[in-house]
Amino acid sequence: MNEADVLNEEALPTPALLLDEPRMMRNIERLAGRAERLGVTLRPHLKTAKSVEAARRLTGGTPGPITVSTLAEAEVFHEAGHSDILYAVGIAPQKLGRVQALRDRGCDLVVILDSEAQAEAVARAAVPALIEIDSDGHRGGLHPEDPALIRIGRILHDSGCLHGVMTHAGESYTVCGAASHADFAELERKAVVAAAESLRDAGLPCPVVSVGSTPTAHAARDLTGVTELRAGVYMFFDLVMAGIEVCTVDDIALSVLTTVIGHQPAKGWTMIDAGWMALSRDRGTAAQDVDQGYGLVCDENGRVLPDLIVSSANQEHGIVSIRPGADGPMPDLPVGTRLRILPNHACATAAQHDRYNVLPQDGNTMQTWHRFGGW
Amino acid sequence: MNEADVLNEEALPTPALLLDEPRMMRNIERLAGRAERLGVTLRPHLKTAKSVEAARRLTGGTPGPITVSTLAEAEVFHEAGHSDILYAVGIAPQKLGRVQALRDRGCDLVVILDSEAQAEAVARAAVPALIEIDSDGHRGGLHPEDPALIRIGRILHDSGCLHGVMTHAGESYTVCGAASHADFAELERKAVVAAAESLRDAGLPCPVVSVGSTPTAHAARDLTGVTELRAGVYMFFDLVMAGIEVCTVDDIALSVLTTVIGHQPAKGWTMIDAGWMALSRDRGTAAQDVDQGYGLVCDENGRVLPDLIVSSANQEHGIVSIRPGADGPMPDLPVGTRLRILPNHACATAAQHDRYNVLPQDGNTMQTWHRFGGW
Repeated sequence: MNEADVLNEEALPTPALLLDEPRMMRNIERLAGRAERLGVTLRPHLKTAKSVEAARRLTGGTPGPITVSTLAEAEVFHEAGHSDILYAVGIAPQKLGRVQALRDRGCDLVVILDSEAQAEAVARAAVPALIEIDSDGHRGGLHPEDPALIRIGRILHDSGCLHGVMTHAGESYTVCGAASHADFAELERKAVVAAAESLRDAGLPCPVVSVGSTPTAHAARDLTGVTELRAGVYMFFDLVMAGIEVCTVDDIALSVLTTVIGHQPAKGWTMIDAGWMALSRDRGTAAQDVDQGYGLVCDENGRVLPDLIVSSANQEHGIVSIRPGADGPMPDLPVGTRLRILPNHACATAAQHDRYNVLPQDGNTMQTWHRFGGW
Repeated sequence: MNEADVLNEEALPTPALLLDEPRMMRNIERLAGRAERLGVTLRPHLKTAKSVEAARRLTGGTPGPITVSTLAEAEVFHEAGHSDILYAVGIAPQKLGRVQALRDRGCDLVVILDSEAQAEAVARAAVPALIEIDSDGHRGGLHPEDPALIRIGRILHDSGCLHGVMTHAGESYTVCGAASHADFAELERKAVVAAAESLRDAGLPCPVVSVGSTPTAHAARDLTGVTELRAGVYMFFDLVMAGIEVCTVDDIALSVLTTVIGHQPAKGWTMIDAGWMALSRDRGTAAQDVDQGYGLVCDENGRVLPDLIVSSANQEHGIVSIRPGADGPMPDLPVGTRLRILPNHACATAAQHDRYNVLPQDGNTMQTWHRFGGW
């Protein structure tokens, strides 16, 4: 049975989010193998999946260490059996009550911070924290040489809350190819190892040294001094990751099933029922060498239709057309034809849906995995 | 009691979607008054709100005629008492079963189409339809002079399914000011009135002549020949609508409450816990004269902080900074400070949330209105 038969048999209403489980498992195993060879603990980031069933597959069948981006994720995954959780967004003091409530229920929840004000609030609440280090100028974090590092370390240590250091090379998304990503991986490693050494030189313990982004995790050559690796989007991959050569288009496990609802033949437009509500407004490939519009178009079986992209999106309408500059003829796609759209950014596209329609490993019946949102 | 007191009292976790009910009611009354003066039925588009409580306020306290963008909306609003519903996205034949099921339950659900293939499927299913007319080259629809119009009209009429014509001037969003929007309103009116007259000249009835977009609905000078007016985002308004002068920033009823979680003082960055997951990836103001980034920053009471915008967004992080070219100093916003972000596009931002936290009319306790998604 091919995939189109499975989809038809289920009469799935469109638009719908499809997850190709064999591709996902291949992606999961690829990074798990790397982490093992590099000698670090893999702590997958669940902000992409937000699904208990997906989490179980990410952590090898039993609840393992995870990273989250919201306290809602921490609560849901703790309820599902995960007890070793890093909340990797700078802590707001107002959120410490919820953090403490989770810790009181047996969840080893750790927070991150990069200021003395946060450290004082965290110390008062007796919550363990990693100090965020800036390795590439991307967003938050202290430079490893910032004298505030030791002051923060001391505030945390004095209340038994100093857990370690972490960084995230968000800028690695802006460069292409394994060699460039390996350079960013080395920036990550050097920054956190330097910070950990500064803390230790000041007599402050630093057991956890955490790095990660999907590009650097797949390219790092050496992680000496690092204890754990974080990554999120790697389980699904997307066009942004393919555009910087972390994966190929064939590795992308997520797509949006859609139906053709109209045409403007004079303009070369085919209208589909997947607009930005189903695809997201993410235009992450706009800054890359190949702009994929709002997504790359495949047939119902997932075969890429060359140079066909979603060139424009309104709330519930997508406009499919041939990529600017390409000269292929527009394929014949009558009203009612089903297509699949590969997403620019899996985190953003998945977030527009409340379930994964999981294409089976072996032609079995499609499964539905619930996906949650909120904070 | 000021709004900050209400928010503190409720200890609302951030990020959270806030709805200012008095502003919303003012926006609703403004367009209701215009429709009455223009002599047309107002058929609000619920794709923006997706909330039964908001719908009730849009239709004057009792369930009135509405427009929807998904069959899920039609099902929820019919369940809530609305029985006169236009599904204003081109119909896919596969969806007619769900349409018929709703009609069998007493919902007067009408669909739209612009091709003979769709008309034949709709005629077989005995579902009433409006023919979509293209008034401005924006997306779908037939030109009023297209000979297919009469052929489609005849297919529909022969099975008792010809309900009328409709158009949407989506291109009106790209021009600024009431005079320009009035020109688009006249394009809408002329296109559908011409189509209706062609149908009538061919002996085909055309009872419904429907137009609408938020800009044209607020600017139309004359709607002779038109029977109904559709608009959606007007109930909340947003920065895109303010940027083309359909409203002022003071009319925007929707905002995202957020908390400061960090700083990079050397870069002039303040980090907040509202990223694109809370704000959406919509960058609708990027093409306008004033680019508002991912949103305009207000204090907790909703007062605009001049030239402060969300300049960058990751999944759960926003970076707030002074607008490029402006020279105001960065205000002092310690970790834990609460801010409000006005959205670029209310439809997209609201879609990232499952509830409205409704700021009361008179200092009463905040209400929570459920918001739904899906298809």
